[in-house]
Amino acid sequence: MDDHALKQEIAKADKAINERDFDTVASCYTEDAILVVKPGKLVQGREAIKVAHQKISEYFNDSLNVSQGDMVILEAGDIALVLSKAYIESPGKLDSEFSSERDAIYVYKKSADGKWLCAIDNSYGIELLRTGG
Amino acid sequence: MDDHALKQEIAKADKAINERDFDTVASCYTEDAILVVKPGKLVQGREAIKVAHQKISEYFNDSLNVSQGDMVILEAGDIALVLSKAYIESPGKLDSEFSSERDAIYVYKKSADGKWLCAIDNSYGIELLRTGG
Repeated sequence: MDDHALKQEIAKADKAINERDFDTVASCYTEDAILVVKPGKLVQGREAIKVAHQKISEYFNDSLNVSQGDMVILEAGDIALVLSKAYIESPGKLDSEFSSERDAIYVYKKSADGKWLCAIDNSYGIELLRTGG
Repeated sequence: MDDHALKQEIAKADKAINERDFDTVASCYTEDAILVVKPGKLVQGREAIKVAHQKISEYFNDSLNVSQGDMVILEAGDIALVLSKAYIESPGKLDSEFSSERDAIYVYKKSADGKWLCAIDNSYGIELLRTGG
């Protein structure tokens, strides 16, 4: 699935995060999407997610460099589950308490015009089961 | 989220699997749902999933007893990501090569009439990242 349209969408979102282009970042999510900011802290809605990404970027001293490695995509009609090895580098913030390599879980939804949008962005993956949400 | 409607749907599906009521099992899935039978083997579509569940039940000598433990549900509009500790017991098949305790990942979709249906059933969770799908 190397050329999967969804992979391109995820690469586009990563690029926008790294370039701090938060309008583009926000446009990658559904209207009522959920972002797991950290275990126990969720934000919902495109606008709230945009603000959260700005804050995350600031937390990492605007040095964030996110990318994905191995990826598995399970597509069922207009819904897709993405399992992805996510890398979060931040040369300007070396003392972060958060892991820089994660088994992320994303859920994407295909909109009426055929574009994949992120509905659930959980870079902490299954870790939430251990922290209770 | 103890009383989440989705939890009740999952409990209903587990009960139907344990009672080998495969019509009810099939009715818990979307039309184009995906079931991960085992790493590397997917089936798609309600009918194919019904047949797969029958075969899985036979593999376990009709002694399958599935249940869920801790669960985290992230709901974004009509889509929900479920992270669940899944227990697969089979007293009649003690030599199974598959793990009896798993960190499962399910994706549910709310239908037009408000009923939650399973779109992606991946009891192997993030393990697929290590096996390549």
